[in-house]
Order: sequence, then structure tokens, then C-alpha cells
Amino acid sequence: MTTATPGAAPPDLGALAAALPEGALVADADRMDKYRWDRAHDPAAGMPLAVVRATCTEDVQAAVRWAAASGVGVIPRGAGTGLSGGATAQAGCLVVSTERMTAIEIDTATRTATAEPGALNIAVKRAAAEQGLWYPPDPSSYEICSIGGNVATNAGGLCCVKYGVTTDYVLGLTVVLADGTAVELGGPRLKDAAGLSLTKLFVGSEGTLGIVTRVLLRLVPAQRAPSTLVATFGSLDDAIDTVVEVSRRLRPSMLELMDRASINATEDALRMGLDRDAEALLLMQSDEPAPRGAAEIAEMAAVCEAHRAREVVTTDDPEEAAAFVAARRMVITAIEPLGSLLLEDVGVPLPRLGELVRGIEKIAAARDVLIAVVAHAGDGNTHPLVVYDAADVDQTARASAAYADIMALGISLGGTITGEHGVGRLKRPWLGDQLGPDALALNRRIKDALDPQGILNPGAVFDPAD
Amino acid sequence: MTTATPGAAPPDLGALAAALPEGALVADADRMDKYRWDRAHDPAAGMPLAVVRATCTEDVQAAVRWAAASGVGVIPRGAGTGLSGGATAQAGCLVVSTERMTAIEIDTATRTATAEPGALNIAVKRAAAEQGLWYPPDPSSYEICSIGGNVATNAGGLCCVKYGVTTDYVLGLTVVLADGTAVELGGPRLKDAAGLSLTKLFVGSEGTLGIVTRVLLRLVPAQRAPSTLVATFGSLDDAIDTVVEVSRRLRPSMLELMDRASINATEDALRMGLDRDAEALLLMQSDEPAPRGAAEIAEMAAVCEAHRAREVVTTDDPEEAAAFVAARRMVITAIEPLGSLLLEDVGVPLPRLGELVRGIEKIAAARDVLIAVVAHAGDGNTHPLVVYDAADVDQTARASAAYADIMALGISLGGTITGEHGVGRLKRPWLGDQLGPDALALNRRIKDALDPQGILNPGAVFDPAD
Repeated sequence: MTTATPGAAPPDLGALAAALPEGALVADADRMDKYRWDRAHDPAAGMPLAVVRATCTEDVQAAVRWAAASGVGVIPRGAGTGLSGGATAQAGCLVVSTERMTAIEIDTATRTATAEPGALNIAVKRAAAEQGLWYPPDPSSYEICSIGGNVATNAGGLCCVKYGVTTDYVLGLTVVLADGTAVELGGPRLKDAAGLSLTKLFVGSEGTLGIVTRVLLRLVPAQRAPSTLVATFGSLDDAIDTVVEVSRRLRPSMLELMDRASINATEDALRMGLDRDAEALLLMQSDEPAPRGAAEIAEMAAVCEAHRAREVVTTDDPEEAAAFVAARRMVITAIEPLGSLLLEDVGVPLPRLGELVRGIEKIAAARDVLIAVVAHAGDGNTHPLVVYDAADVDQTARASAAYADIMALGISLGGTITGEHGVGRLKRPWLGDQLGPDALALNRRIKDALDPQGILNPGAVFDPAD
Repeated sequence: MTTATPGAAPPDLGALAAALPEGALVADADRMDKYRWDRAHDPAAGMPLAVVRATCTEDVQAAVRWAAASGVGVIPRGAGTGLSGGATAQAGCLVVSTERMTAIEIDTATRTATAEPGALNIAVKRAAAEQGLWYPPDPSSYEICSIGGNVATNAGGLCCVKYGVTTDYVLGLTVVLADGTAVELGGPRLKDAAGLSLTKLFVGSEGTLGIVTRVLLRLVPAQRAPSTLVATFGSLDDAIDTVVEVSRRLRPSMLELMDRASINATEDALRMGLDRDAEALLLMQSDEPAPRGAAEIAEMAAVCEAHRAREVVTTDDPEEAAAFVAARRMVITAIEPLGSLLLEDVGVPLPRLGELVRGIEKIAAARDVLIAVVAHAGDGNTHPLVVYDAADVDQTARASAAYADIMALGISLGGTITGEHGVGRLKRPWLGDQLGPDALALNRRIKDALDPQGILNPGAVFDPAD
């Protein structure tokens, strides 16, 4: 497969190399291999024509201009940690990697960070923290994922239940458009009603409308040290009822759920004494100032106990709290030894969370596959992990069917097929089921207006055959 | 002037009346007069062909379909409180008023409100409050402005400095597109990464991409009773330095500034004992829970005193606090007796606020007009009010020149021509100066993709001649 369009000049990599700094163009297969994959491990990943390891906006512009002239598709790539295949390379495409664009500047006066897209989320957090500031969005992968990827997928995380997602912190962008123009959007202004909300449009567009080369992020004062609660439940229903009631009464800064399979896989990996017999574990935090924080934790504990929690542990010790949060963050890693994974990201309105999780149990039974559930329960966003043996053709097919079933279930409950990972290539077939034909067509009109050649991340979000 | 496009069928109001409920179509000049104007009082307001007083999404669809078939421009209209002329009628256009679409439903389970666009902001706040919930955005006009208009302009207000603007609370929309299709976007999900961020794109689009007929709003737990501080300063510089330092150290839930002209006009109207000799008054609140709130107010007071405040008053009395907030909210009304007004909305990065306000003083002197400044100082968003005698041709010209000067100054300081009022028709000539040609062209591409006939709010935001 090649994406070269009829009538375009044949790809001339020499011209591209000449427009880039020495060493920025990689075209040998061995070195390109790692640029083919993201964390979706899509077996359909192709071999790109070449990889551009951009050092600046101008390099990205040169790459896109060349691609537009040559009719070659461009796959933008951050840290390659995406779970929906948004950065999976396509045969004959040009991968544009931002991994070398990692500069971060903090402006304490405007309380903003300016980051290049390859900067890791953790690096932005650290640079902000050095100035007593905080960049809240915290995907579980925050130590290895890039800000550019976070913007592309409108990434969330654990603190989003109280502090919102990436789009809530993006004040401005530099974006390279499909014709190579670099456009500056937004700025260090907390309010700006001048013209269309284009900054917001590019956040979550998964590289299908342009390639982000600079991100201006709003920072907030350092988070207060949170108080933490961990509760285990003999019944998943009780745990979910707890989530719904806590959410109605309080505003936790974290409200996470792990089911039995997640608890056991994590305990296998960490040996920290988690209750292997529990059907569910809830991890909650309050970062309200004392004494309000302590009061919130006490109220959370009371709700847990009213819903028959087996054990409720609360702590103000930062190290103990960090250990629980780290355990929650490592669920995907802990599950990986059990087999290949299909990573779900289905979200529903909070009152439907119980129906979703119980429905997933039924899907696991019907399809005869293991599905571990870990969830940002407080905002109804679940990550069912479908575990299968990739060497077993039948099981692989059943896992794929379960993956589809879960999305269909989420849609039937008024939910979304992806809360924070993006559609990428893996979830593309279900996007229309969620959005309906009119909203899908509207998406398409925007795409066509901004990328008439269809060269930006072809195959991601939008079906090239449409 | 008429907007009928060549080749379109001549406007047949009978066909439109037949597609609408009895009494929904208004076509006599007397009854239409009030639909010509918004609070921008644009003397160029035209006489519409007719007004549709829509009762539901289907009425709006019928109106837009008819307009598209007839090549007639459509002016969407909420409560008509816009300050940039976004709802100013154009001769020969069809005004679509949502004033009869006022239904509000609160869902406590998902903590959302579903509002029709004609519902007033205050009505949404009240309906939420009845359930112990809070809809934060609070334009000064919140008692008379509609949610549809708030969405159209991405309206802000006083609490935005801590709680964000309208877009931060919009989870979903029903939008009637330029061909009359009604599309549902988003839903009661706190995270949703499926497809482009179209909900966000429509917020702030000022009716140029579609007409919003239903808004799904995120609500939050009721705000805690705030503590309030009022400080007066003999020097505007000292007041602004206080704003910058408070913003660096704390997160006030309100941080407003009134200059001497604003203080005096308000005192003329209210006789509440404001210090007429002060050069500036700051109004701050903290809604942090006790004892943190008291500590924040004490720290704010200390910053004020360190910057030579003449007087610092703090209160936890809700009535006393409400009186100060009401005084701040009524500045525009209080200034109105002084003459005709050109209402500015220029915002700058917070560190540039002093340069902006001092620059506005120089513009007032150079143009020999009174400019009163009231500001959402905490987010750098100012509302300079250019006061002039509309009967004085020369003064009117000087006021217009000052209005333009202020926008040019804001842009030169890295700011925006509009923080929360929208571009409308009054600020359209300066939009390109702020955005630059590439971003302006990008806006235009989106507009053309979604409204190829150019029938949606012609003349607002986009120059029809382009």
C-alpha cells in the first residue's frame, strides 16, 4: 500500500533531506522499525518511506510541504505511547517524529508553560513544580507520554475528575497545516473570544488537521498534599454504588476503581498486600485544605462503610499514598504478562457506570475471555483490558469481538467509545455508531476543509475510503 | 441592502409561515423594531424581512431551510444583550429569536443542566441552586442574558478567574447547521475523545456556523459562601501591582477593578459611600473553606496594605458582600447617564495589565474623551467604556478613534480585542490585526466549509466581502 496520489510527483527523498538538518531524515528499515509502532501494537503497521526527526517547527513545515507536493501521507508521532493506533505507521508514509523537540519554558508571570510537543508530560510537570506551579493532566503513562500526544488525544488521567482534561489547559498552539503553513493560535490569555475556537478544535484532532509544534499551557498553583483513602469491597455493585454516591456528595481529586483481575495482577507484580479476594478496590483522594480535606475523607469512608466495604484505609502519609497511586497506575503493565491486550477506553454518564461494568462481565463470560477493568470511576471512564493469547486464532477473534461488544455497550448507555485515548485506527470503525451520520459528516467536512488532500494521519479517525 | 443571492427563489414568507406554528412569524415593522437592536446599539441596524420566534429545534430548522432555499441571511438572537453587535439585524435578513425556548432541566445524577438557548443565565443558576448545584459562568448581565448568547460568545464573568468560562461547562449541544440539519454533539460525559472537538468549536462561534437550540451544561457543587475584600487605592499603579501580586500568590474566586470614573458613576447611582477620591477600587473574594478562606483574605489584605491601599474592608457578611458585587456589576448601567458608550472588552496577559490601563489613560487624553475602566482584573480582561455625546459629530469620531486605539494597544501587548463579548460586527475590522492573515484564513476555511452560502449571521465575525 502506498498513499501517493495520482498525478503527484514521485517521492524524492533527496529533496526532503536537503530541506532538513543533517541527520534528521531516517530511511533505513532497521532504524525505522521503532517508528512503525505505538502501544496499540497494531499488526497492520506498515513500513514508512522515511522518518523525519524534526528539531523545530520549520523542519515539520519542510516535511509537510514535501509530503503535500509528493502526495505522501504524514503520520505525526510523539512518544509513541498511544493506545488506539493513532501513530501507527502506514506503508509508504512519512513519519514525522517530534521526539527531539523537548524544550520547555515556564513563565511565572503569566503562569504558563511553553512546551515543544516532544516534551514528556512528566517533564512539564517537573518544570512547573520547580516554580511552585502545577500542570494537572496526568495520564497513567505520564512518565513516558509526550505533551504533543496529550494534545492530539485530549488526554485525561487520574486528577481529571476534579481538574479537567488537556483541553482545559491549552491556551495556545503553533500548528503546521496540511500545506505547510505554520499558524499561531491563542496566547497567554485566560479569556479570548476573538474568532472561532480553533485552539480547542485542534486539541483532540489526533494529527488529522495539522501537526502541533508548540503548546502553550495554563498552569495552576501547586496542588495541596492530598489525603488518601483505599477501600476494598466484596461486591462490585457496592463499590460502584459508592462511586456514584461519593460523586454526588463530594468533589474528590481522585476516584479510581480496580476490579478483582486488576487487583490480582497488580499484587502479582508489586506484592504490597492488596486483598486478592476483594471484588473491587476504590482509591480516592481529597486535596481540600485542612480541616476540609480530613472531613471529606471521613465522609468518603462513611460512604464506603455504608456500602459494606471490607476494609477502609486512610492516610495522610505521602509515601503510602504514592504507593497506592503507583499501584493503580501500573495496572496495564501488571496485566501485560497475562497475554496480549486490547485496551478499551469506554466512558459513560456516571449513573450508567454500574450497567457498563456489569455488562462487561457478561461480555467476558459470553466471549470466554478475561477482561480486567480499571477505571477513572469518578468520571465514568473505564479501561477494560481484554486479555488474549495472540497465538490462539479463535481466542484472538473472541477478544476482538469482546472489544467491539464493549464499545457497542458503551454507546447503548449514552457513552463514548473513547474518553481519553482517541479514536486512532483501532476504534475508527465504531466512531460513526457513536456520533451518528450527521455528526460524522460534520467531522468529515472540517477534515476536508483543512486537509483536502487527505495527507494528515491518513487512516486515523477518518476512513480514507469515505 | 438585501442578502438575497442571485439565482435563489424570491423570499416567500407564506411558505415560511406555513412551516411554523401559528404566530411564530412576525413581519410587521413595529413589532420587529425591538429585534433589530442589541446592546451595541449599532446605528447601522437594518430592518429584517421577518422575525421567527422559534419554539423548538424544528422551528429553527424550518427557518434555516427556508432561508437557505431563499438565499436570505439568518441572524440568530438570544436575549439581545450582546455588546459587539453580533445580533444586530441586517436589512432583508431573517431574525431567528430563541426567546421562547426557555426550558431548563436539571439532572442531579449526571450533574448536568439541559437548557434551551433562550433560558436566561440566572434561570439556569437558580434551577441548579434548587438542587444544591452551581452553574459558574456569571457575566455582569447574568440576570438578563441568555444561555444561547453565552454559548455564542463564550461568555465569561466575574468568577471566571477561578472557575473558567462558558466553554468549560458545555458538554453537549444541538446545533442547526446552515442546511437545516440538526446535529447532536457531545453528551453528559466528562471525558470524550471521539472525533473532532466540535462542541468546543461551536462555543464562541457567534452564530456563524450554526444555531444552537439545546445546551448541555456541566454543573458543580454549590459554591461555598465567599469571604470578600474591598480595597481602595490612591494610585492606579498600586492597585494593578496588587492585582498582579495577588494573582501570583493566591487563587481568588473574584478579582475585579474599578477606576475612578467607574467608582464615581457607581456612587452617583447607588450612594453607598464609595471613596470618590480613590484612583482605583479592587473587589476580591476567596471561596476556600474555613480557615483557608480567612487566611487567603488576610493575605490579600496584606498585599493591598503593602501597596499603600487607602482603605481595606473585609467581610463575611453575605449581604454586605452582595452589595459590593452588585455595585461592580452595575458599572456599565451607572455610566450610561454620562453619554453614549462604546464598550470595550480588551484582554491582555496579566503582566501587561498595567501597560494596558495606563495606555488607555493616554488614549483618553489624546482623544479628549472620557474612558471609564472596569476590569475582570484577575484574568487581564478589561472593559474600558468610551463615553461620548452622540450628538457631537467630532466627539463621536474621537470616541471611535479611541475605541480603535484601545484594540490596537491590546494587540500590541499580546492581547485580544475581545475576552468575552465576541467580535460581532463592531470589532470585526480588527480581528485580522489580532489573528494575523494565516489564522484569519483558517477561520474563513471553517466558515466556508460549514456555511458555503454565507447565510449564517452574515457580517458577524467574518467580512462578507472577503
